[in-house]
Amino acid sequence: MQVSKKSVVRLSHYRKALLRLKELGFSRIFSKTLADEIGVTSAQVRKDFSIFGISGNKRGGYKINELTEDLRRILKKDNEYQIVIAGAGNIGRALMNYERFREDNIRIVAAFDIDPTKIGDKLRVPVYPLTEMEEYIRKNKIPLGIIAVPDVAAQSIFDLMIRAGIKGILNFTTIRFKGAEDVTISNVYLQFELENIIYNLK
Amino acid sequence: MQVSKKSVVRLSHYRKALLRLKELGFSRIFSKTLADEIGVTSAQVRKDFSIFGISGNKRGGYKINELTEDLRRILKKDNEYQIVIAGAGNIGRALMNYERFREDNIRIVAAFDIDPTKIGDKLRVPVYPLTEMEEYIRKNKIPLGIIAVPDVAAQSIFDLMIRAGIKGILNFTTIRFKGAEDVTISNVYLQFELENIIYNLK
Repeated sequence: MQVSKKSVVRLSHYRKALLRLKELGFSRIFSKTLADEIGVTSAQVRKDFSIFGISGNKRGGYKINELTEDLRRILKKDNEYQIVIAGAGNIGRALMNYERFREDNIRIVAAFDIDPTKIGDKLRVPVYPLTEMEEYIRKNKIPLGIIAVPDVAAQSIFDLMIRAGIKGILNFTTIRFKGAEDVTISNVYLQFELENIIYNLK
Repeated sequence: MQVSKKSVVRLSHYRKALLRLKELGFSRIFSKTLADEIGVTSAQVRKDFSIFGISGNKRGGYKINELTEDLRRILKKDNEYQIVIAGAGNIGRALMNYERFREDNIRIVAAFDIDPTKIGDKLRVPVYPLTEMEEYIRKNKIPLGIIAVPDVAAQSIFDLMIRAGIKGILNFTTIRFKGAEDVTISNVYLQFELENIIYNLK
């Protein structure tokens, strides 16, 4: 069954909220509480859960431990996923240190850049020459890539990642990639997000 | 008329593509070319343009100069918009140097942090104590804010920005904010984007 991206992202929100509530000492929770916590309706919560085969009971609500375990399994949190970054500029370097990836099951193993001054292992993640990226991905069977290069280089980096076997890409350029079947792409158009906010200013 | 966020983001894409095509020497363009450039149908391009009152002609297509001028006006590119950043950590610092904001009409004027070691003006953008943020926003009538603080501090920073008069927020925490009428919020859930990609891995 095809599940919408919005549903999956809400699962991530539920999981995050549950971890917070658990820390506060809760052991059971009603869909209403969870709904309020992330700003949706309780019908939405129940619908999302039923899509993924999670059931509660009307009287007692959900057990937080069981629920977080279910979400953990559905979101594939039991495996570690390795990811590489193309581009060790501002965004690339910020992501190397991004706490929220590290506290999770996502591990940035290498970054690649064409600029020799950025290459080395002074940072938390080693930076290699871009020419070595394809072989590195292939050899280490890396499933995920981040593209944080200038727009002009983006499509060729994308093609190279796909050729090397990458199956999921987080894109920080403003390019919409062509030739992407069997690959999940998530576009983070920072500049366009701001343009949209400005468009909506009164 | 309420215009969908997707339409506005596509306008940003069209504008970017047109600037590239103009650099390549094009002076006229058909909806088909523009559609191919960003991976939508030409019907979509024409529909988007008609929503915003832009017209071409069937024979000669669109004049690139006129079209970029229209998009510039619609996307309010003639004014400069000032923005402040709450949080001078990895993401906040990356954004201070983010070329794509600077080449545009978005100017980051100040950042704020609670950590005294991050405060100062060694960076491209001065970093002030967080306690000064509310007054700064009010005094300088700043319309836009970026929230790049730890999740636990996010809601209170949000409340403070709204109280001070901010009308548009780009949010990098995983929090969904409450109490936001008359404010445009754009959420960049980096961690959840990756979780969604991983969910979709075969």
